[in-house]
Amino acid sequence: MSGRLIGVGTGPGDPDLLTVKAVKAIQSADVLAWFAKEGRRGNGRGIVDGIVRDGTIELPLYYPVTTEIHRQKPEYVHQVTSFYEASTEVIATHLDAGRNVAVLSEGDPLFYGSYMHLHVRLADRYAAEVIPGVTAMSGCWSQANLPIVQGDDILSVLPGTLDEDQLVRRLRDTEAAVIMKVGRNLPKIRRALAEAGRINDAFYVERGTMANTAMTPLAAKSDDEAPYFSIVLVPGWKTKP
Amino acid sequence: MSGRLIGVGTGPGDPDLLTVKAVKAIQSADVLAWFAKEGRRGNGRGIVDGIVRDGTIELPLYYPVTTEIHRQKPEYVHQVTSFYEASTEVIATHLDAGRNVAVLSEGDPLFYGSYMHLHVRLADRYAAEVIPGVTAMSGCWSQANLPIVQGDDILSVLPGTLDEDQLVRRLRDTEAAVIMKVGRNLPKIRRALAEAGRINDAFYVERGTMANTAMTPLAAKSDDEAPYFSIVLVPGWKTKP
Repeated sequence: MSGRLIGVGTGPGDPDLLTVKAVKAIQSADVLAWFAKEGRRGNGRGIVDGIVRDGTIELPLYYPVTTEIHRQKPEYVHQVTSFYEASTEVIATHLDAGRNVAVLSEGDPLFYGSYMHLHVRLADRYAAEVIPGVTAMSGCWSQANLPIVQGDDILSVLPGTLDEDQLVRRLRDTEAAVIMKVGRNLPKIRRALAEAGRINDAFYVERGTMANTAMTPLAAKSDDEAPYFSIVLVPGWKTKP
Repeated sequence: MSGRLIGVGTGPGDPDLLTVKAVKAIQSADVLAWFAKEGRRGNGRGIVDGIVRDGTIELPLYYPVTTEIHRQKPEYVHQVTSFYEASTEVIATHLDAGRNVAVLSEGDPLFYGSYMHLHVRLADRYAAEVIPGVTAMSGCWSQANLPIVQGDDILSVLPGTLDEDQLVRRLRDTEAAVIMKVGRNLPKIRRALAEAGRINDAFYVERGTMANTAMTPLAAKSDDEAPYFSIVLVPGWKTKP
């Protein structure tokens, strides 16, 4: 009998923000797969450090590209596709041998997570389940004590990779926004927020809920250094009740 | 010494989707507060049924209005404001007496949760913490096995209360969408999705991750019955890798 594939959301960083279901799935898995840069351990694997059972088979999946190449470029698509195909086959081998495989995904697996690329390739052939997790953005606005949306507010989740005029247009046309993938896009994001009249509402959080987290109103941040997985929050919530 | 206020996200419905941190907070709280309709127990309270410690003081907070009145109407604002003020005072009395108070919030407390109305009234006067939770939308797309966004996709979270032309315009201008507060708005939402050319991508989920959940492609749903807390998902994710 084949094993079971489980995509497990690890939450934003604090190990106590794993769900009870995620803890059970990790502790009962035969194989624990996780994405990382070559030779590194990956944030997801770090989060579950305290709960992995002795004897678990560890399966690191090392990304082939560590620098940012535009995702439409054929070279990028080829490398990444080959990587997901190869990862799929090694996981299929474990599933065929009757082993349950848990694949870690930071935050929530189907919300910008790499796990989805394995899921779409395996879920037709094997029993598969996704365990949702607390997203990085929820971790960030909770840590910052920032109510993000209430009532009939619209929330726009925007990648920081958007063109500046796209960012401006969308920031003008929403109550609340979360800007993901900040990194080197921070100067552009600042300009777009200023142009849209939202710069004084914006709040910057890096490594939300992790031990080395930092946060500040964006207007008070004096440099443009930001890790790729930092987030800018623009709360929509203004008035009581 | 004053007690501590903790807003606790209970996740979407499955008790195993509580975080480890939420379980600890609920089990160590002196007072457990939860929102509900008059005389009912509230979904949040139901989710944590199996983990509440004997001797915990239960503090139900009953909403004053059970029918939908438009939130801009003075009558609604007055009733709701009075309710939050009164709830604030009863919680403050417990905090003054040195009791820790955990306030349950379905999903994630600062994402459309009632808890935020207490937080903004109390966090200046008392130690306060927010424990994020898995949102209802994450629970729904995970249960449905629907990757919602990848790469540079934009996600728009739209209340079903929006005007039809607003819905159409925004559905045309986003990769992925989540439509919240479906309920009686379902016929309008269907028309907007059809007009925007997205009806065949749309997926309907009610009571995601709960025992009595139901889900179907929206185009295959033959009636317009929907509970208020049902969700329509429009995945942005189309292409591999």
